[in-house]
Amino acid sequence: MAKRKVEIYDTTLRDGAQAEEVNFSLEDKIRIALKLDEFKIDYIEGGWPGSNPKDLQFFKEIRNYNLKHAKIVAFGSTHHPKKNPETDENLKQLLLAKTPVVTIFGKSWTVHVKDALKVDLETNLEIISNSIRFLKANVKKVFYDAEHFFDGFKEDPDYAIETIKRAKSAGADCIILCDTNGGTLPFEMVEIIKEVKRRLGRGFNFGIHAHNDSECAVVNSLEAVRLGAVQVQGTINGIGERCGNANLCSIIPNLVLKMGYHCSCAENLHKLTEVSKYVFEIANLPHPSRLPFVGRSAFAHKGGVHVSAVLKSPRTYEHIDPLAVGNVRRVLVSELSGKSNIIYKAREFGIDLKMDSPLLNKIVEEIKNLEAEGYEFEAAEASLELLIYRLMGEPKQYFELLSYKVFDLKIDQHFPKAEATVLVRVPPGVGEVEHTAALGNGPVNALDNALRKALERFYPQIKEMELEDYKVRVLPGLPGTASKVRVLIISRSKDKKWGTVGVSTDILEASCQALIDSYTYKLFLDKKGN
Amino acid sequence: MAKRKVEIYDTTLRDGAQAEEVNFSLEDKIRIALKLDEFKIDYIEGGWPGSNPKDLQFFKEIRNYNLKHAKIVAFGSTHHPKKNPETDENLKQLLLAKTPVVTIFGKSWTVHVKDALKVDLETNLEIISNSIRFLKANVKKVFYDAEHFFDGFKEDPDYAIETIKRAKSAGADCIILCDTNGGTLPFEMVEIIKEVKRRLGRGFNFGIHAHNDSECAVVNSLEAVRLGAVQVQGTINGIGERCGNANLCSIIPNLVLKMGYHCSCAENLHKLTEVSKYVFEIANLPHPSRLPFVGRSAFAHKGGVHVSAVLKSPRTYEHIDPLAVGNVRRVLVSELSGKSNIIYKAREFGIDLKMDSPLLNKIVEEIKNLEAEGYEFEAAEASLELLIYRLMGEPKQYFELLSYKVFDLKIDQHFPKAEATVLVRVPPGVGEVEHTAALGNGPVNALDNALRKALERFYPQIKEMELEDYKVRVLPGLPGTASKVRVLIISRSKDKKWGTVGVSTDILEASCQALIDSYTYKLFLDKKGN
Repeated sequence: MAKRKVEIYDTTLRDGAQAEEVNFSLEDKIRIALKLDEFKIDYIEGGWPGSNPKDLQFFKEIRNYNLKHAKIVAFGSTHHPKKNPETDENLKQLLLAKTPVVTIFGKSWTVHVKDALKVDLETNLEIISNSIRFLKANVKKVFYDAEHFFDGFKEDPDYAIETIKRAKSAGADCIILCDTNGGTLPFEMVEIIKEVKRRLGRGFNFGIHAHNDSECAVVNSLEAVRLGAVQVQGTINGIGERCGNANLCSIIPNLVLKMGYHCSCAENLHKLTEVSKYVFEIANLPHPSRLPFVGRSAFAHKGGVHVSAVLKSPRTYEHIDPLAVGNVRRVLVSELSGKSNIIYKAREFGIDLKMDSPLLNKIVEEIKNLEAEGYEFEAAEASLELLIYRLMGEPKQYFELLSYKVFDLKIDQHFPKAEATVLVRVPPGVGEVEHTAALGNGPVNALDNALRKALERFYPQIKEMELEDYKVRVLPGLPGTASKVRVLIISRSKDKKWGTVGVSTDILEASCQALIDSYTYKLFLDKKGN
Repeated sequence: MAKRKVEIYDTTLRDGAQAEEVNFSLEDKIRIALKLDEFKIDYIEGGWPGSNPKDLQFFKEIRNYNLKHAKIVAFGSTHHPKKNPETDENLKQLLLAKTPVVTIFGKSWTVHVKDALKVDLETNLEIISNSIRFLKANVKKVFYDAEHFFDGFKEDPDYAIETIKRAKSAGADCIILCDTNGGTLPFEMVEIIKEVKRRLGRGFNFGIHAHNDSECAVVNSLEAVRLGAVQVQGTINGIGERCGNANLCSIIPNLVLKMGYHCSCAENLHKLTEVSKYVFEIANLPHPSRLPFVGRSAFAHKGGVHVSAVLKSPRTYEHIDPLAVGNVRRVLVSELSGKSNIIYKAREFGIDLKMDSPLLNKIVEEIKNLEAEGYEFEAAEASLELLIYRLMGEPKQYFELLSYKVFDLKIDQHFPKAEATVLVRVPPGVGEVEHTAALGNGPVNALDNALRKALERFYPQIKEMELEDYKVRVLPGLPGTASKVRVLIISRSKDKKWGTVGVSTDILEASCQALIDSYTYKLFLDKKGN
């Protein structure tokens, strides 16, 4: 039997960005969109162009990239009650976004129509209808988000139904039923959706958008799919306003592995954990270890009987195979799955490792140790590649940083001043020593400037590269300012980009590790002829 | 109509303690048990006396306390296949715990009977039956945990049913259906429970124990209750092995506020947030802000329009009244914030601002400017409060940092060394100047140590406070290491917590701003008499 297809609509960049601790830069948004496209998410909601200039900039920028699969969606509202579609600023901005798909939300709940929009109920219906008709004339696909649909239905079912009937007859390609406040329980939702289907009849194409305020968002989404929803909206790791949105990282594997549905991203399901970690790395959020499917603890087994049982017959203590979602079983006695990950990764770097080689054990061991110290290689693959070469006995080393000194001061009302000096030897061990100094607008920048200045004398191609992003994560452990930090640097040269990592209680030392790896990788790429 | 009663069974101290990052001391366990009793949890599973001496010690110790409501439960397994109940060490330890209730688990899944117990199917049935009969002769109440019940049912329904029939006829007071691997989806669970009820007939008293591996544990528990479960097992905040157990902090309010069930703890529901925070405080885990009902962000509102709507009519954007679970509405001051946010926030600080006052305009203006520079006040409310006082012409200033110098170096293979000196004047402008120095395990830590050392001379109460968290966020704008950074510091003194913020291209300068605000706020709190 052919599996029914469900479309996945990601709103990490819009609803996810409403989460309290989330704040994406334009560059962050582009990177996440590219990652989601690579994973084959069907729709990527990029933002609300009418709400701020950054979002409009995103839509302009993303057009420079050739997306493989995903369609970019612009989000907005129905037109303002005092405007018409042609004069409405919000709808105008939506068209300026030039996306193949637009989603607009409108009011389903009479309370909101009267109190928020301050119009009569019939006018709201016309606003919905006119807004969609106008957009349909200009955009390929239009989705209609029925905001507060379930609350609205509980208050006045006839009116809530009428709003989506109008949206449908105005040409909306899909009607998204939204549990905006996240208060609806699954059994209520099931009854309401059944009634909606009865009243809307054939040809009613609907989707679901759930929030997690009652800890039911994932189940609500799955139940809607069982009742025929063709589209599920959610975010990576469930980030979003208040308690978050429906978590796509749980919904997708449940749909694909357990419920027999098909999604475009099913072929990439083994990259789910990577996508989940990538997005939080970019968002500069710690990745919660308890996350279902993708968390570090999701397949962690404590010692003893449990472990030997799970190795003999994994399904006795695991609901799915962790490899199916790109996660790993974590047990004390064997790192079998760790090995296959490394083999897979090394192959991407063009290095062939054998499952039974002692070198592989050594690499897995070293990575485990570094991870225990706080290193993470998810977004720092250049550091991982350099590490593997080092353990293979083929270290890539083009220079040696013998020492650094950094001085930073603030006196009275003057600007802070930072100065660094470095001693660099090229080639390492035997070469000439360059001693130089530089200023910077902070201690890390001063150190970076001094190192770059020293290296450029020997390797003028360093000028081609730039540091595109610099992130600092404070690791749990020691309290307050005594904590360890992890520094992640993303560098770019020509069309190549790479990430490097460093860890220390001293932010300068951690930055220095990441900088050394970053400059080294640039020189390594040039040797390889890239 | 009288509400049906559901009993709440907490296993935070046993299954919760199996979570990867959790490690309770004996004292921790006692404190949590007392808190749960005060909250009127019905059953508190204290541990597995057969598995470690600490747990047996807990049962001995807790008898010294006069619990008001809760019954303490000891947990263990059916007797060893090679023993009988009278000679089994595990059952003996269960009796030594001297609890009014004992819960034992047994095997429902044929695979486990054969592979783990290594006995034939009939022997397992006898083990279950004999173990329960033995315990019932010695303990008031015996609950039977049917481990892996749903997986066992899917494999061999007749056998799984037979195991619980035997438990029932041996006298178990309640049969707990366990989704041990957390893989069962709600609609599967509903079908299985219906079938079990058909086969077990009248007088079948059952409970539910769910795990969250598919992000369905809360809903699975609620569905079981709808089908007649009289007992729900779970943990505070859902901690537990792998992805955790069913989260009682979501289950209880859903049952009480939305589904019309009665629980003993319903009368204390307004203490739910406090209980949730207390347990994580003891467990030394950060309290996730996104937790439904009890999280810091659960009722946090960001957007301007949104905020004015929620203030007029809270239910338009809130699924329940936050006070019902002891949480609070939070209006976040962010880029989107308007005057109504500031008025609301100021009122929280005890400052009365009028909508039409010029001061309000000045404050909104200043916050917008600071936000454009990269400041964020969402998590830094102490900095916001100090800022408002400053703009009101009532600055809170107890010291003045005249200058700092920080020196950080790494030479050869030696550890990096950081040293800071500071010049502090108390009181500002006119007072005595303290010049001091300190080392640190990084430049920020050195600066913090020096500042604290200088201040403690004048304000010994600084010793009461500690920096609980330190976060660094690199802001978009200048490339790479030249970027601006935002530093957020969370401080604590006694039962008070506050956040402060600093922004600069120099991480030391940004940290310094946040540190100054943090120490200032502590001194301000003391003046206010908090």
